[in-house]
Amino acid sequence: MTIADSVLLTDLYQLTMLQTYHAERMNETAVFELFVRRLPPERNFLLAAGLEQALDYLENLCFTAEEQDWLASTGRFSADFVAALADFRFTGAVQALPEGTAFFANEPILRVIAPLPQAQLVESRLINLLHYQTLIASKAARCVLAAAGKLLVDFGLRRAHGAEAGLLAARASYLTGFAGTATVLAGMQFGIPIFGTMAHSLIQAHDREEDAFERFAAAQPGNVTLLLDTYDTEAAAYKLVQLAPRLRERGIAIKGVRIDSGDLAEHARQVRRILDAGGLTHVTLLGSGDLDEHRIRALLAAEAPLDGFGVGTRLDASTDAPTLDMVYKLQEYAGQPRRKRSEGKATWPGRKQVYRRVAADGTLAGDCLGLEHYPQPGQPLLRPVMTQGRRLQPPEPLSVIRDRVRAQLAALPAALRTDETAPPYPVDIASELRELTTQLDQKPH
Amino acid sequence: MTIADSVLLTDLYQLTMLQTYHAERMNETAVFELFVRRLPPERNFLLAAGLEQALDYLENLCFTAEEQDWLASTGRFSADFVAALADFRFTGAVQALPEGTAFFANEPILRVIAPLPQAQLVESRLINLLHYQTLIASKAARCVLAAAGKLLVDFGLRRAHGAEAGLLAARASYLTGFAGTATVLAGMQFGIPIFGTMAHSLIQAHDREEDAFERFAAAQPGNVTLLLDTYDTEAAAYKLVQLAPRLRERGIAIKGVRIDSGDLAEHARQVRRILDAGGLTHVTLLGSGDLDEHRIRALLAAEAPLDGFGVGTRLDASTDAPTLDMVYKLQEYAGQPRRKRSEGKATWPGRKQVYRRVAADGTLAGDCLGLEHYPQPGQPLLRPVMTQGRRLQPPEPLSVIRDRVRAQLAALPAALRTDETAPPYPVDIASELRELTTQLDQKPH
Repeated sequence: MTIADSVLLTDLYQLTMLQTYHAERMNETAVFELFVRRLPPERNFLLAAGLEQALDYLENLCFTAEEQDWLASTGRFSADFVAALADFRFTGAVQALPEGTAFFANEPILRVIAPLPQAQLVESRLINLLHYQTLIASKAARCVLAAAGKLLVDFGLRRAHGAEAGLLAARASYLTGFAGTATVLAGMQFGIPIFGTMAHSLIQAHDREEDAFERFAAAQPGNVTLLLDTYDTEAAAYKLVQLAPRLRERGIAIKGVRIDSGDLAEHARQVRRILDAGGLTHVTLLGSGDLDEHRIRALLAAEAPLDGFGVGTRLDASTDAPTLDMVYKLQEYAGQPRRKRSEGKATWPGRKQVYRRVAADGTLAGDCLGLEHYPQPGQPLLRPVMTQGRRLQPPEPLSVIRDRVRAQLAALPAALRTDETAPPYPVDIASELRELTTQLDQKPH
Repeated sequence: MTIADSVLLTDLYQLTMLQTYHAERMNETAVFELFVRRLPPERNFLLAAGLEQALDYLENLCFTAEEQDWLASTGRFSADFVAALADFRFTGAVQALPEGTAFFANEPILRVIAPLPQAQLVESRLINLLHYQTLIASKAARCVLAAAGKLLVDFGLRRAHGAEAGLLAARASYLTGFAGTATVLAGMQFGIPIFGTMAHSLIQAHDREEDAFERFAAAQPGNVTLLLDTYDTEAAAYKLVQLAPRLRERGIAIKGVRIDSGDLAEHARQVRRILDAGGLTHVTLLGSGDLDEHRIRALLAAEAPLDGFGVGTRLDASTDAPTLDMVYKLQEYAGQPRRKRSEGKATWPGRKQVYRRVAADGTLAGDCLGLEHYPQPGQPLLRPVMTQGRRLQPPEPLSVIRDRVRAQLAALPAALRTDETAPPYPVDIASELRELTTQLDQKPH
């Protein structure tokens, strides 16, 4: 049983509530919806991601004997309740936005319909899984829009928040349009293309920088990208020009170079000039070092001759907006719509659907948040993905999701595609939903 | 093989460099040091954390046959190199700051001394592990200082970045002085006290709020904390006063209430007044909802009668400073000190030690970053923790680390203990280290 698989990766209150539901035989159907209450000011849209991992989690949910024993040992739970957990499985239905779909505040991206205890217990981990990949896909999308077709690679594992974040950031950025990742395990686990160059330590471990270049090149003749900025970036470029003929004689071509510090635009111009003058016009330039969408845009605006970018820390931790206000709320129980009315945190009740209108030219023209049973104009976005606890389809290939993201980004209104905070994309609330809300607010509790 | 354990949770360039080292038989001793280049403006000090997980990683590092096969299948590596990986183990030595030690910019918190390939490969995951727990412990310390002895509980799992972050945030905040966590698995895995109340969904699933309170209380009579803000916080407090005598007759005492929205100070005052007037003076008040050290200080300054705080998203994602500029750099190879000179990223070379001076009253009085073999006044902080790939001591109990943190926080200069950005704590560079650096800069590369 690994950390990520354990049913105990949940909040204690889920289990205390389950004990209440167990004692009260509250087992009727509950409907929970997962959505983001507000977009951060730094995000004009979000991209749904993480659904496959969420469905894996639901399909495999169970309590091991060891977990039951431990729960019993805490003295917090009745023997009867702990014993009943042996049969706990997720048997519900799920509707969701396909991964890679753009969405906005208050729009459900996932709905769970299941007996109350099942739908309740999964809250913590469902948010945990969908929050992170959605966060990273949404950040990566801004980089993709900024990079205007240049190569992007995820370099963020080391400062991602733990193992799972490092691995899933590779997935979320790749499905958004990154060319790949430096994280090797993401290659093995998801078939994502992996990219790598060299670190400063390899240069430092040699007494002479040119020896490091030559030996590294000889050890992987098919894939030589050299790092230039360990001591003096331009001096290193000259060394490379000197070295290239000798490598060519040995059948080794230099594919690219990486610059990781200083004024990247200026260094890129100097290095390009030195390499071109030395006949190395085919050698590509990769920039890295605290990059994000703003710096990428600035580098391209300055006409820095960079062919690609490694984006690390600011991607994998989404540093400008490191969390989303994502929640999972009960909207219906035992056939009755339900509404939380907490100050500043009130929800729209009932089973809802997102209806998206598209203009003749393909541009998104506004959404309507309505009730599932009162269709509105536009395309309904939530689709069935699980029934009776089993997936309806095999996992979508990442290539399909990448195509969807490409289409979604192209369809966004222009103002939403920039780095600037745009006026919010229009999301209307259907009149039937407003009426239901008013009705519920008149009920005593 | 789980995600967290896989040796392939590393950057591709580590493996391409290893292939070079393999081809060149570069197997001499390398010394790498892990440190933070700059403190974020929001942090006056950092607390080292994550060492136990880092040592676990080093002790268990190996390539499985499946991983070797996959590496071979990429076509990037020679058969000879891949075959040699079967025997790869970490056999080096490690020195480190004990967990919970305060530290500052440029001070190594961990040093690895091992054959170059071993010391190189572990870079990505060592940073990944030490970065996250150090990040969270350092954030949690600010909450602990702000809360002035009130109860603090980690509520952040759902918006932590993935499974491992959720679990390790519980550990990092507990070792810093939090009373515990809502994350159940942290209880099972680390023996950390777990705390839980109820969610709004339990209230919403009942038609009447008072029924929800009564049934929840009856289902866990020893541990009743009720959530008041689903509809109307003060109305819920009055319901509680009405309900209490009936519960008392059944032998059930209400332990506490939680308020999760609105003006927490004002609601807390109203609720305290209602509960006290109703004879419920013993019932404690827990506040939650987007809390951090600033809001906790403000609530206490406003004399909000809150007895404790649940801190979630802003803790587990360290939202005001979601990453640290933590790096792992080669400082010596084959007996020769090494130095990276990249612009803005130059390092202090050689094997270093942190010497800490303490004033007569116990307050930290300034550090000196010096060479290990040129002792300076003060206490050396880096201690041996691993040799020949094995731990020197069993893992420290968390209670020992908690005691250390308590002493460290008490010993910090007063200006560093506030929420404001203080002038940097003094860290001198020893003259011998400056001289070594100058010497190395005169060497050609």
